[in-house]
Formats: sequence, structure tokens, C-alpha cells
Amino acid sequence: MRPIADAPVTRDGKVLVLAYDHGIEHGPVDFDPQPESADPEHVFDVATHPAVTSLAVGKGVAEAYYPSYEDDVSLLAKLNGTSNLWMGEPDSAVNCSVEYAAEELGAEAVGFTVYPGVNGEVEMFEEFREVQEKAREYDLPVVMWSYARGQAVKNDTGEETIAYAARLGLELGADIAKVKYPGSQEAMETVTRMAGPTKVLMSGGSKTSDREFLESVKSVIDAGGAGLAVGRNVWQRENPRRILDALEEVIYEEASVDEALDAAAPKP
Amino acid sequence: MRPIADAPVTRDGKVLVLAYDHGIEHGPVDFDPQPESADPEHVFDVATHPAVTSLAVGKGVAEAYYPSYEDDVSLLAKLNGTSNLWMGEPDSAVNCSVEYAAEELGAEAVGFTVYPGVNGEVEMFEEFREVQEKAREYDLPVVMWSYARGQAVKNDTGEETIAYAARLGLELGADIAKVKYPGSQEAMETVTRMAGPTKVLMSGGSKTSDREFLESVKSVIDAGGAGLAVGRNVWQRENPRRILDALEEVIYEEASVDEALDAAAPKP
Amino acid sequence: MRPIADAPVTRDGKVLVLAYDHGIEHGPVDFDPQPESADPEHVFDVATHPAVTSLAVGKGVAEAYYPSYEDDVSLLAKLNGTSNLWMGEPDSAVNCSVEYAAEELGAEAVGFTVYPGVNGEVEMFEEFREVQEKAREYDLPVVMWSYARGQAVKNDTGEETIAYAARLGLELGADIAKVKYPGSQEAMETVTRMAGPTKVLMSGGSKTSDREFLESVKSVIDAGGAGLAVGRNVWQRENPRRILDALEEVIYEEASVDEALDAAAPKP
Amino acid sequence: MRPIADAPVTRDGKVLVLAYDHGIEHGPVDFDPQPESADPEHVFDVATHPAVTSLAVGKGVAEAYYPSYEDDVSLLAKLNGTSNLWMGEPDSAVNCSVEYAAEELGAEAVGFTVYPGVNGEVEMFEEFREVQEKAREYDLPVVMWSYARGQAVKNDTGEETIAYAARLGLELGADIAKVKYPGSQEAMETVTRMAGPTKVLMSGGSKTSDREFLESVKSVIDAGGAGLAVGRNVWQRENPRRILDALEEVIYEEASVDEALDAAAPKP
Amino acid sequence: MRPIADAPVTRDGKVLVLAYDHGIEHGPVDFDPQPESADPEHVFDVATHPAVTSLAVGKGVAEAYYPSYEDDVSLLAKLNGTSNLWMGEPDSAVNCSVEYAAEELGAEAVGFTVYPGVNGEVEMFEEFREVQEKAREYDLPVVMWSYARGQAVKNDTGEETIAYAARLGLELGADIAKVKYPGSQEAMETVTRMAGPTKVLMSGGSKTSDREFLESVKSVIDAGGAGLAVGRNVWQRENPRRILDALEEVIYEEASVDEALDAAAPKP
Repeated sequence: MRPIADAPVTRDGKVLVLAYDHGIEHGPVDFDPQPESADPEHVFDVATHPAVTSLAVGKGVAEAYYPSYEDDVSLLAKLNGTSNLWMGEPDSAVNCSVEYAAEELGAEAVGFTVYPGVNGEVEMFEEFREVQEKAREYDLPVVMWSYARGQAVKNDTGEETIAYAARLGLELGADIAKVKYPGSQEAMETVTRMAGPTKVLMSGGSKTSDREFLESVKSVIDAGGAGLAVGRNVWQRENPRRILDALEEVIYEEASVDEALDAAAPKP
Repeated sequence: MRPIADAPVTRDGKVLVLAYDHGIEHGPVDFDPQPESADPEHVFDVATHPAVTSLAVGKGVAEAYYPSYEDDVSLLAKLNGTSNLWMGEPDSAVNCSVEYAAEELGAEAVGFTVYPGVNGEVEMFEEFREVQEKAREYDLPVVMWSYARGQAVKNDTGEETIAYAARLGLELGADIAKVKYPGSQEAMETVTRMAGPTKVLMSGGSKTSDREFLESVKSVIDAGGAGLAVGRNVWQRENPRRILDALEEVIYEEASVDEALDAAAPKP
Repeated sequence: MRPIADAPVTRDGKVLVLAYDHGIEHGPVDFDPQPESADPEHVFDVATHPAVTSLAVGKGVAEAYYPSYEDDVSLLAKLNGTSNLWMGEPDSAVNCSVEYAAEELGAEAVGFTVYPGVNGEVEMFEEFREVQEKAREYDLPVVMWSYARGQAVKNDTGEETIAYAARLGLELGADIAKVKYPGSQEAMETVTRMAGPTKVLMSGGSKTSDREFLESVKSVIDAGGAGLAVGRNVWQRENPRRILDALEEVIYEEASVDEALDAAAPKP
Repeated sequence: MRPIADAPVTRDGKVLVLAYDHGIEHGPVDFDPQPESADPEHVFDVATHPAVTSLAVGKGVAEAYYPSYEDDVSLLAKLNGTSNLWMGEPDSAVNCSVEYAAEELGAEAVGFTVYPGVNGEVEMFEEFREVQEKAREYDLPVVMWSYARGQAVKNDTGEETIAYAARLGLELGADIAKVKYPGSQEAMETVTRMAGPTKVLMSGGSKTSDREFLESVKSVIDAGGAGLAVGRNVWQRENPRRILDALEEVIYEEASVDEALDAAAPKP
Repeated sequence: MRPIADAPVTRDGKVLVLAYDHGIEHGPVDFDPQPESADPEHVFDVATHPAVTSLAVGKGVAEAYYPSYEDDVSLLAKLNGTSNLWMGEPDSAVNCSVEYAAEELGAEAVGFTVYPGVNGEVEMFEEFREVQEKAREYDLPVVMWSYARGQAVKNDTGEETIAYAARLGLELGADIAKVKYPGSQEAMETVTRMAGPTKVLMSGGSKTSDREFLESVKSVIDAGGAGLAVGRNVWQRENPRRILDALEEVIYEEASVDEALDAAAPKP
């Protein structure tokens, strides 16, 4: 962890990552509810919303689209990922080197998934080491997608599991840890306390009602979390800018959920 | 993906790859229906047809024959491949480095097979990363042979599977993705949409009637695909130039299948 | 082994390492008995006690907190470690390179765990080789956490096992070997004799009564050991400085356990 | 494949490799029928016969003896090999680097075994790639010992199998492929046709009658093969020079088998 | 193999290696019969005996003690080794690089164990390759501990097995091969003949009567062997110099066993 208050990936110390690595992780089926979301251009447009501090995409999408958006979007290059056609132990291919992300893609941060608890934990941690140390050479903040899995993980959203996942972010040198929501603000307080200065992002998960969604985000912020990484719950919507308006209120403006819902309501 | 409109591997944005890596992948048995096809010189001669934008061969064949054809043929160095004597999980040996392809063979593009869904997916994706990043240093377009396989793949020509395979081409940074034909123009439209700016080639498969074959190629073009990669269906013929004449009409001249068949008919 | 009498990691040839790698090895549950121990700042403060010659932490914690303590604390970068979510054969991920520890973290010593007897012994020894040789380039003392495990190890605190573990420290080139307490001063004499000039540290283990704890430390010193590496038994206390006062007496001042207990008693 | 007409490993475009890697592959038992064959000096002497274009030995034998023979013998450094004490899947250790062969041993060609069809095919092909590309840097011809093995290979001397093995020599960039004898001149014609410009050597195999042996060599030459790689069938003889005289007639002088037998008969 | 007649590891072309890697291979239990043997200083003192041409120790012991003995002892750095706590397939960790042995330890020769016939044979041979080639750069003689093991090895002291082990020393480029005693001078003659110019050392094994021990050494010398590598049979004795006196007679002075026993008898 290093001070990243001034890094483009933050706004007033808070973070909203728009995640769009679903084309590799899940495939086209994720775009079905909102077909235009299959088009990266559509999602890059969404990412120009001021609430979004960073857009997380893989190498190929960045290579093809970021040149047209580099003034308006901050790129978080997601370095590893694997298709869901693969039925083996959880693992993740390193699809982009830090050098390539920094020098060729123009990334302003890098992201890397680790699965503490899986058979390949040792290998994933060691890959993370190389990424983290190389990213420091380029002064790129490092975001760890930290998802505990494997035999020993009975409840992957339990407070203890999430707190451990976030702590590993701190221990291994991540600037930001993206973890699942542990169910309550109180649990999230434990999580952010364990992460120390490593910023904690709630992973957006699937679509719920707007109120429920914003309340969970609000509880993250109130628990000392830095914000949210969200994908489908934004770009599977017909009007993604409205929910981003609401998230902007909650994350950066200390607004209540009601105020945020008002701000994002369709103007008459 | 990067703009490759001017690359030798394309003609008016379209692509016809003549594939001739069967000597490694299948062995001499593939040459039986047309014995002279065992002779690479014969196939290099076929590849001088203007419809062919690129000839895909392995290192050894390129090394031995390309020096005599470099003015008339554009070389796509196929970098990996494995014999079919091997009974293990699908995998593919990297038989040629990008450096060697670029500096010693004079390749103008490189090709690499990945099998999303197999046990070695992670390793194949990581090998692809190295190839892709090194190819960028040499400004060589990268063609991904993308064939989903493994336990989770129930139907390897289903629209969803092919669309995922093509999307992985985009996500991982391929300029061109070679995929199986998903059965209809409508399905192919989904596939090309998922691939975004990554050009999509239909993989030629086995011999069918000329009409059926040209109709499937036509449907690829009409669906926004870039063209075709074809092997046996060309060089196992007695007169491969005729079918190339027909393909030229369909791929580059927006001709109908009937017009193409006429163009390729033996002149009286 | 090389002369390290003048290295910051020692004081009068003795050593007291405060170990704080529990966030990775065990997770937040270790901080429950003393919640403020979850905060690395709290433990760095404890480590400013003059009895502590070195604070052992992982990369991320060092990166975030050591800049504020580098005048008052000597950093021992613990280079490998693994979560206890992982159920496989004992192994340990290399989470920090020696180069990074030396150049970026400002470490004054490095620590590395090996598990002689496990399936991965060969690999761990080879990783240790690389660490040891690289550390020599930076003149950093090398501390080996040496814990025999695996099928052949029936009693992991038996004299023979611990003596072997310590001897491996000497054989493989560690300056300091951290081993379990073999149960008696006599056994510890064998252990230190087998280690030759490699300094031997008793691993602190879990909380016992202060008298029992100090007596075991005293017996290590009397047996020719260099001191102690201790974690929870210090920072899980309400007043860790008192036990450090007592340890200071025993380790550096040749005090008796009674004298040490007096010195550390609350002043009226 | 590259033009090697002028390489020391050939004579008039033909090749006779004397193979002497039996000390590693089979051990001393192979020397029993002719005890002096255990002495490399004896075999180097045999290799000075003008019929022999190259002597294939491993690193250690080359290092010890080649300095005394470099004016009279052309060295083919056999780079990989494994003892027959090993009961696992066919594989072969790389015992000599190309750099060492070229710079320290003074080799004029390198040899490498691959076993298409075995579990380690992918790894062996990749090792071959590195060898082949490095050998090109030193302008050293590459000889592939190509022996199909594994579950799918029912008949390892069948025409189809041998033809595939030879074709892989061409596909992977070998200048010369050493394969088993497929049983007839007709089958050998298929084999050499599939190998294109890659020269094909028949692997000598065990002792037969001189007439049978020379007839098979003659059929290789008549089928367009380049010659022979032979070991025991030469140096297990009491008078190896006589059979080399005969081979010289058959391989380089287009002699009939009868003429060759006459030429090699003991002079009265 | 290269001429090493002038190397410090030999005396008049003969070799007596004092081996002291037992601390890693067997652990402290080996020192029990003569407790002071646990102290490397004691063994370094023994190694100053003029009969000893080289002392074989691991990295850590060399690092700690060799600086005080470099004028009186010649260091053979034993580069690999593994604890006997490990129950897996025979294998050996590379604990010291050649570079480190040459540049930091001041070694005058390097030693490396291979186990022909084990599952890891291929890997061990390849590690040996790297060691051998790197050692050549530093002009360091290479000693191979060559012990055939594994399923196919029914009798690990049979003549055929030992002869194969010694031959592998020659084939792979070792200057000296350390093998088990094959039981008789006649068998040893086969062994040394198979090794060619690679010097053969008998591995000392366990304690026997002095006469029996010297007779076996004598038979090695008479069979053309270079000498002996011996450990416990020297340093587990109360007066190791006496047996070294006797060995000196047998190995370097062509003395009979009776003469040697006289020379080494306690002076009245």
C-alpha cells in the first residue's frame, strides 16, 4: 500500500470502478439482458460519467477502444482472467503484463484476481507479487480482486472470510482490495479495519432493487470503505447514468439513500 | 486488436487464409485425396491466387519454401501445433517463436491456437499473451484459432459457444479470430457482434458441395465476418484455382453464390 | 552464515524478533484477543521497545507503515507466507523479492520459511537458495523459519527433529534459524551445538504463564541460543511493554527469571 | 530446413551418421559383443572412415575425445538422452545446450530426439523449437531423431507412422530426420516424399546379415533418402571398416549390393 | 571430462574426497558416534591431512568455516542435497549455485548428485547440465555423485548398475564420478573402463574393519580408479588421522594394505 490519494483511480479518496471483464469471465450471455452492452463503446460511454473513477477491462478491449477514450476515462487494466468454460480448480490466466498495460495500453491502474484457499493459492500469490512489484516501478496503483474459495471456505460472504480476504490485500501490498459484501455495515467495519490503509471496495454482485443496492453501498461508505466495483448492475440497465447519478451522491456527497434516489429519478 | 486495414493479411478489409498446417496436426493422411498436396510447393503455388491474402504454415515449411514465394505470397506463421498421435488433453506445442517468425521467416502475421475450456486453458492463454505482446513489437497481426473444447462444451458449433470463442479473441487482443461456423447467418451475426472490431473468419472444415460451401461463406460475409480460413476444401481439389475464383467473387466482390459459381465454372 | 554481530538485527549478539505475519498466516482471528493488535501501527509502536531487535512483517504492512518507523524499528521482511484457508500440503508463497525488500522496503534482514520433510521440500530449499544468495548481495542477514513437517516427522518438538531443523539452517546458509522449543535446556543445548555459528531463536508459540514463558527463554539463552521470535505472546497482551521489559532482562542482562519478573512488575 | 548441401554433415548430398550415444541410452551392455567398443577412442577411429559424414555422441564423450579428432571427424552433438534405467513415459533429458555444443565442443551439427505421440510431446516439441532456433544462430544443421510412440502408435514401423514422423521433421524445421525403416522401398518413397527437402535417414537398428542390411540401405537411397544413421551394426563388428567400405559404395557410388559386398570383402 | 591433472582436487592424479554433507542428508544422528564430528571445525581440521585432496561440504558450512581454512583445505562445494525427513521419490534440492560456489565460497571443485533411474532423472540430468556448463566457465572440475535408483534397479551395487552409473559420468561430462563399490576389483575394472577418462571414486559407505576397508580401496586403485570419497568412516573415528595415514599409503604410495596398516599403527 502506498498513498494513492492523488491517483486518477480515486476521487476525494473514494473509488467507483466500472467493471467490464465479463466477456472473458462469463461470455456473451452476460450481455443478453441489455444487448448493447456487448459493445464496449457503449460501456466506455457509460464510464465517462464523473462518478466512475476507473473502467476495468482486459487487454484486448483496452487496446481497441481506450485510444478513443483516454481523455475521458481512466483505465484499470484487468491483468488476469479465465473463461467459465473451464471446469477445473479456480485459477486465472495472466493475459496482460504490467509492462504492456503501462506502456502500450496507457493504464492508470492494474487489477489482479487472487483466490485465497484454492489449490493454486501459492502460484496466484506469487503471480501477484510479480505484478505488484512491477506496478510499483510504473507507479500504478494495484487493485486486488480478493475472493476466498476452496474447501476451507464454508461461507464466502461470512464476515471472517471477507475480513481475511481484505487483510490479505494489505499483507500482500495491494492499494485497493475488492471483496464481496459481508452482509452488514457492522461486518464491513471489521473488514475495513483489517485492511488498514488498503482501500476496500464492495464487489457489485447481481442486480437487486435500487434502494437495497444503494443501501449496501451507503453502508460500505459509512463503514470506512472506499466505494464500489460494479458491472452488470450498471451496464445491464436501460439507463445506467441514473444509477451512477445516485451512486455519485452516496459515495462522494455523503447523501442519504433517499436523497440519492431523488437525484437519480427521471426528471419530469 | 489494432487497425490492420493496411496489413498484407487483408484485402479491402476482407481475409482469406489458406491453411496448410495439416502435416503437423493430422499427418500425411490428409494429403491422400490429392497426393500432390503433400508437396508444399504445390500449395504455395495455389496461394499465389489473388483471392488468398495469407498462407498459414508452420516453421519448417516456411523456412524451406517461403524464400521462393515471398514476392507472391503473404506468410502467416502458425506458431503452435501438435500431432494427432497424442491422446492427451487438447494442448498445442509452441513450435516457433514470434522473433523467429518475424526475423528469420519474414512472416507478415502470426497464428496461434487456443482451446478455451480445456485443462490447459490457463497455460494456453498465457502463451497467447506472450505471443500477442511480442507480435505487437514487430507490428504483426495476430490470428487466434479459437476452438472451445472440454467438459463444459456440449456443442462446439452452438451459437453461444462460437460467440464466446470469438469474444475471447477480442478480450485477449487478437486482431482476427478463426472460429467454427455456427450454422446460420443469424448466429454468425451474433458472433461477429461479440467480436467487435476483431475480424472473424469461418474455419473451412471438410469438403461439402461447392454451393453449400459458398453459401456458408456468403453468410459469413453478410453477417459482417471478414472471410474464411480454408485448407483441405481448397488444396484437396483437382483444380483449386476454380474454387478460389468463386471465393474471390463472394468475399471481395459482393457477388451472389450463383454469380460466383458461374465465374468459377470451367470455360468452354 | 556470516558474521552478523554488527547487524541491526542483533543487540550484543542476542536477538528478539517481534513477529507479526499473522494477518497472512492465520488471518484476523489472531487479533481477536486484543483488537488493537489488528492495527499494524500498534505493533510497530510495541516494536520500538529497545528489547526488540527486529520486527518481522510482510511486504504490504512494511510498505504502508515502515516509512514512519524506520528510525525506531529495524525491519525484517518476511518474504514468504500463505493463508490458512489453503488445505494442501504445507507450502509457502514467495510474496516479496529480496530486491524489493532491500531497495523499496528498506529491510535490514529477510526471513523465509522452509518445511523440511514436506513434499515441496526440494522446491522450498531451492527458493531459499535464491533468497539466500540474493540477500548476500545486499548484505542482509537471512533468518530461516525452519519447521520440520510431513509424514516422517512424528514429533515436531522432539530434540532430534528440532536439532535437524536447526542444522539445516547452518547447512543451507542461514544466519539465524527460528525453531520450535524442544522442551528443555539440555535439548536446546544439542540444538544450538548442531547449528554451530548459526544463531538459534526459539519460536514463541502460544501464551503460557509469564514465569513458564520466561523460564523457557532463559533456558534458550543458557543453552547458547540467541534469543526469541515472539508474536501473540507479546502483542495479544494488554501491556506488551512489561513482558518486553522482562525479556530484556533475561535475554540481554543475564538476569534470573525472578529478577526479570520484578523488573517488569507494575510500578506502584 | 535450410540448404545444407555444403555442410560437413553431408557428402555429395548424402549422409552417414555413426551413432554412439548408447552409453547413455542403453549403458555398457551394448558394448559387450565387442568390448573395445566401450572405448570411445575406438569408435572415433572408426569414424575417420571417409564414408562417415558425422559422429553422433553426447557432451561428455565429445568433450573428452573430440579435441584429438577434430581434423578427421565431423561432430554431431547429440543434445538429449536418457538412461534406460528409467521406467517412466518416454522422455529425454537435454544434456547439452546448443551454445555449449557450438562454442565449447566445436560441433558441426546437433541432434535431438522427439517422441511424437507420448505424453510429453508438447514439451519435447518446445524443447526442439529452442534447439532449432538456437542452432540457426550458429548455422548448425539440426538432425531430428523422430520416433513416434505412445498409445496411438500401434505399429511403430508402419508406413503411415514413419511418414508422419518424417513429415514432422519438415514441419518443425529439422534439416535431417532420422526414422525407422518402414519395411520396403515403396514405403520409404512415401516417407521421403512427405519429408520434402528434409533429408531422411534410416535408423540402423540391430544386426542383420550384411546383404539384408545393405539392401535396406540401397532401398533408402533409391527411394530418395539421404542415407543412414547406424551404430551397433558398425562398431559391434570385428572389422567395422569393411562394412563402411560397402556402405560407401551403396550410399555415395550408386553401386549395387553385390558390388558393395565385393568391395568390402576381405582381400586375399 | 577435461584434463584435471593439475587441479587442486587431485594429487598425482589420485583423489581422496572427505565428504561432510551428512548434516543435510542424514541430520545430527550421524554425529552421535563421535559427537565432536558435529562441529565442522573438527572436520575441517581433519581435512588438512595431506591425504585429503578435497573437502565436500554444503554452502552454509563452507560459508562459515572455509575462510579460516582456505590455505590448508581445498573446497569441493556440494551443490545439491535433501533432508532424509522427506519421504518422496529420490530427488535433491539445488542449494548452491555454481556462481556462488565459485565467486563467494572460493570452491575449487563442485559436486552434484544424480539418481539415474528415478522419476526425476530427466530433471536431475538437466540440472546437472546447467551445473556442468557453468562450472566449465569457472574452470571448476565437476564431481558427479552417481547412484542408480528406482524400479529398474534391482541391485544397486551390481557391476552392471555401477558400470552404467560411472559411464553416465563420462557421457554427461563429469570429470569425476563417485559410485558405490561393486564388490570386487574385477567388477571395478569394468567400471573404470566404462568411465574412460572420467576418474572413478569409490563411495566410502559405512564402517567396516580397517583391513577390509583398505583392501577395497586398494582394489579400486589397482582397478584403475582414482580413489575414494569417504565420510563417516573417517570422521566418526576417535583418531581419524591414522586411517588417513593408511589411506595415503594405499592411494598415493602404491603401498600394500599391510604396509599401510603398519604406517597407521599407533607409534609405541
